Amino acid sequence: MPTEREAAAFEAGIKLGALYHQFVGSPVSAETAESLEVAMEESISLQPFVRSVSVEIDRQMLGRNVFGYGELAGKMLRAEVEIDRHGARVRARLEYDPQADYPLMSLLD
Amino acid sequence: MPTEREAAAFEAGIKLGALYHQFVGSPVSAETAESLEVAMEESISLQPFVRSVSVEIDRQMLGRNVFGYGELAGKMLRAEVEIDRHGARVRARLEYDPQADYPLMSLLD
Amino acid sequence: MPTEREAAAFEAGIKLGALYHQFVGSPVSAETAESLEVAMEESISLQPFVRSVSVEIDRQMLGRNVFGYGELAGKMLRAEVEIDRHGARVRARLEYDPQADYPLMSLLD
Amino acid sequence: MPTEREAAAFEAGIKLGALYHQFVGSPVSAETAESLEVAMEESISLQPFVRSVSVEIDRQMLGRNVFGYGELAGKMLRAEVEIDRHGARVRARLEYDPQADYPLMSLLD
Repeated sequence: MPTEREAAAFEAGIKLGALYHQFVGSPVSAETAESLEVAMEESISLQPFVRSVSVEIDRQMLGRNVFGYGELAGKMLRAEVEIDRHGARVRARLEYDPQADYPLMSLLD
Repeated sequence: MPTEREAAAFEAGIKLGALYHQFVGSPVSAETAESLEVAMEESISLQPFVRSVSVEIDRQMLGRNVFGYGELAGKMLRAEVEIDRHGARVRARLEYDPQADYPLMSLLD
Repeated sequence: MPTEREAAAFEAGIKLGALYHQFVGSPVSAETAESLEVAMEESISLQPFVRSVSVEIDRQMLGRNVFGYGELAGKMLRAEVEIDRHGARVRARLEYDPQADYPLMSLLD
Repeated sequence: MPTEREAAAFEAGIKLGALYHQFVGSPVSAETAESLEVAMEESISLQPFVRSVSVEIDRQMLGRNVFGYGELAGKMLRAEVEIDRHGARVRARLEYDPQADYPLMSLLD
């Protein structure tokens, strides 16, 4: 049987996978990044066992295409989730890893 | 060659197709619907030739699952876009059609 | 520090969250369900530490709207992933729970 | 009132907007690109008034990250849709425009 901490880690993974694949591809610019961050945080906060979610979109990485906007890519995202599942708590993070050039998800602490 | 109005109608379709398929599936509740509406409006407003976008999520249709939230479905959406492409203006709407039980997109005029 | 099994459980969660939120909302019918299943399996199989992925779309739950097709909903999905992360193996499943009326994700033991 | 050709152009836009925003972000590699192309074609073919859909993912643009795969981006897509709405036919294309560095959607003549 999985332990409570394993189940909590599983829940943390679900949240980051959902956050990423629901919203990547959204049109975004420096002017609209904040409303997208808020919507992402509030949306994922509804999922089971979430204690907190924070999302930041890196304005530096937000390019502007010929029409003056960009598109949300995984590499622009820094997100953290805290899970509390029946008292078992875990934290996980999505963050761009520049050496691997990859948006890495990892369990903290 | 397409007319300017045909090209504007094409642009209107792109915006509604994008809005729908980018955001359907997002966790949402009565408490978070507003931030999702704002993010959807601001995101799609960035696309080329958009004059305005409005999005409303029908709170009545927003069910609550066993964990107390719902998921954005096309039928809950009422959205309007106004396109201005080189002076050719069109408006289009996404709205649930109860007789067809279908989230219908149509050009207004 | 997380254990290897916790990290593997986290990876399993990522895969199911990704699968769900990437593809829910796709137009689908009984005639096209198989190609969507294959694409979902092959796509998620590429992610790190995946040993296998299987996806089934429940044809019974696939409604037909007035235009003769449906839209992929979480409740129609039965998916399993096997993760092998540095030797730690976990399996997880997404499956509709009729009592809760919810597409439940859980670690298998 | 919109003309039949305007309405057909609107439908073409919906299909390309849907195709793009439903599937962008999917994990993909040279080995799995074909199943994703087939699923995208079959899925969008179900939508109203579609006569045909073709989708090609540019294998050259498909990078490999540190884990050996990539992610579907708009720039990799070349897609065409043919719409027939009550006899009014239009064709539209999504194609990367290298000068604008933008995945451009346009009505064909």
